[in-house]
Amino acid sequence: MIKIDFEKMGGLIPAIIQDHETNEILMCAFLDEKALNLTLETGKTWFFSRRRNKYWMKGEQSGNTQDVLEVYTDCDADTVVIKVKQNGGAACHTGNRTCFYVKWEDNQWVEHSEPLFDPDEVYKK
Amino acid sequence: MIKIDFEKMGGLIPAIIQDHETNEILMCAFLDEKALNLTLETGKTWFFSRRRNKYWMKGEQSGNTQDVLEVYTDCDADTVVIKVKQNGGAACHTGNRTCFYVKWEDNQWVEHSEPLFDPDEVYKK
Repeated sequence: MIKIDFEKMGGLIPAIIQDHETNEILMCAFLDEKALNLTLETGKTWFFSRRRNKYWMKGEQSGNTQDVLEVYTDCDADTVVIKVKQNGGAACHTGNRTCFYVKWEDNQWVEHSEPLFDPDEVYKK
Repeated sequence: MIKIDFEKMGGLIPAIIQDHETNEILMCAFLDEKALNLTLETGKTWFFSRRRNKYWMKGEQSGNTQDVLEVYTDCDADTVVIKVKQNGGAACHTGNRTCFYVKWEDNQWVEHSEPLFDPDEVYKK
């Protein structure tokens, strides 16, 4: 029976969040066993914040929750891919559709930010 | 100027490898600064193996190299997405197209392995 390997990285695994229709990668965050179980049980994505040292449901502040549609792990069971329906359009706390809006171009990182919401309004309630 | 944050995880960042046409996620591995620079400079994906403690070019044994077409980082510059052309069809050392061939179904992880090559033949040269 396959079990997720949380030991390799001190209890955490990367979780790649992908749009279920376009396969666009929306974000990458970290899960521990409890956050993975919460995600599988509730059908919403839950993460563990390394910075804030707490569990959080994606969208708990912004309303931009993610409905979990499919979950995959890989050949050595140390990463998960979660296919979601992104509610509210934007996954990133900057208001962008995806967190990956910074592209390597001409030997530097270039921002292509097109926010769908104003983070100052959404997070400073 | 945006710089990749290698400090958060002891010198390593996750690198998500994605097919440039279908957006399928092929694998997730770890990069340090040297492996990222090798990847950006050579146009092939390079990783750092936590288990073997060495740098490796994807496909150096199997021939299934990856041509780097686009590279993105995220809002806090601690993860990269690398869009590639996967040579030889399969990214996974098991011979599967993608490493993410294990799906959560009916409360368990179920393998959907359809190898494109025989790993015993490819890696035991």
